[in-house]
Amino acid sequence: MPRYRLVIEYHGGPFIGWQSQPCGGGVQNAISEALEKFTGEKVIAFGAGRTDAGVHALGQVAHIDLAKDMEPFAIMSAFNHHIKPHPITIRDIERVSDNFDARFSATRRYYRYRIINRRSPLTIDHGLAWQVVPELDADAMHEAAQCLVGHHDFTTFRSVQCQSKSPVKTLDAIAVARYGNELEVTCHAKSFLHNQVRSFVGSLKLVGVGKWKTADLKAALEAKSRPACGPVAPSDGLYLSQVDYLPADEIERVAEKLRATKAAKLADQ
Amino acid sequence: MPRYRLVIEYHGGPFIGWQSQPCGGGVQNAISEALEKFTGEKVIAFGAGRTDAGVHALGQVAHIDLAKDMEPFAIMSAFNHHIKPHPITIRDIERVSDNFDARFSATRRYYRYRIINRRSPLTIDHGLAWQVVPELDADAMHEAAQCLVGHHDFTTFRSVQCQSKSPVKTLDAIAVARYGNELEVTCHAKSFLHNQVRSFVGSLKLVGVGKWKTADLKAALEAKSRPACGPVAPSDGLYLSQVDYLPADEIERVAEKLRATKAAKLADQ
Repeated sequence: MPRYRLVIEYHGGPFIGWQSQPCGGGVQNAISEALEKFTGEKVIAFGAGRTDAGVHALGQVAHIDLAKDMEPFAIMSAFNHHIKPHPITIRDIERVSDNFDARFSATRRYYRYRIINRRSPLTIDHGLAWQVVPELDADAMHEAAQCLVGHHDFTTFRSVQCQSKSPVKTLDAIAVARYGNELEVTCHAKSFLHNQVRSFVGSLKLVGVGKWKTADLKAALEAKSRPACGPVAPSDGLYLSQVDYLPADEIERVAEKLRATKAAKLADQ
Repeated sequence: MPRYRLVIEYHGGPFIGWQSQPCGGGVQNAISEALEKFTGEKVIAFGAGRTDAGVHALGQVAHIDLAKDMEPFAIMSAFNHHIKPHPITIRDIERVSDNFDARFSATRRYYRYRIINRRSPLTIDHGLAWQVVPELDADAMHEAAQCLVGHHDFTTFRSVQCQSKSPVKTLDAIAVARYGNELEVTCHAKSFLHNQVRSFVGSLKLVGVGKWKTADLKAALEAKSRPACGPVAPSDGLYLSQVDYLPADEIERVAEKLRATKAAKLADQ
């Protein structure tokens, strides 16, 4: 079965999250329905990140397997037609090896969080950013955020529903920048815990308004305790912006190694 | 009656335009309803620009007169509460002289037009930009647009429904810039004709895709004929971004001069 790698953009507002649900409403559900319309096949799109309800994606990556061999461009065109009126679109598509897995081959996930720092409620950006009224000190937020970088037990910044085996992750980078009355928090890591970015942003907001100092954020991290986290920021401002992958030849090498290890284990038994 | 100057932001999508209609649906209708809720007065907001259906505003300016003297900040807070769920908000408010008129005291209006130049349909920016598929040459568009600057008969770029007495206007500046896959057309003038910016953008798109050269745009302008215009760009991408005014003392001086002229005329009769 040919496998395809899709780069997907969506407005998270109308969906209950990425993951398909028996009753529908997930981004995955809408994608499956659109794919079935022109392939006649029941196809599941496996994504790199399971975004929550209301969370947007600029560059979610997913893989699909089709029984029928179709031109990538034809799939993209047909999909972008049949997905309407859902706010989901395929930005890019390519044929990939069966060893490519949108989730497991990913080497880095990038998130972006938009805050609009002003008194008046949002109109044009309603649902697309978090409106914060008190003035935020972006420099203080950026400085404090640096204590989160590195290999840590992120229990404080992890939803109680998180299904990850371990709360230990490595945050590669995080930055807070101000553009006029807009603040952008960007971060990337190999993988994230459930609600990790929104937990970071909610806690950094406390730094921004002066309630917390860098030491308080550090103490919250070191507490390794969910109640030490600031109020979690709303989903509206969060965007899964990009997912990086191993180069194609590296994916093959890893798969070959895995097969050899498995074969050796079987031979040992 | 105290007069107030409001800076208003709105998402044009749900409205049939700025202007109030007997059957409702105008931005003005929604504003009047919200003001009545907390003032008990029937108030009309007079705007600087009559934006069309679907056109957005980042900085529309309007004036209102209230019978009751209220603190500007209290008006803004009450309005931003009572206007919900309409995507309209007051960004700024101040008390002004009775001689201030949002329409007639304006010295400059600024518009912004957003084009997203890509193949895939818009999701997050749906209704907030114009999606153009063929690659646009922003530099060529910018260069060509310069022939529109200055004092011209803009009949070509004027809707047949335009109510302006004269098609002659002065365009102060126009610029086209590319930021990644987004193009921004910005322009400002003392005043604009109906559909003028969208007519400019629709014609500039022909330049961007290589169908027109600068000479063709110039010829269209010089034709002073509506059919010479390119297809008018959709309302989705258009934003009334700012309105400039005479300084307060200048507004008083102009009003005083007007009164003196009128008095002299009366004395002559």
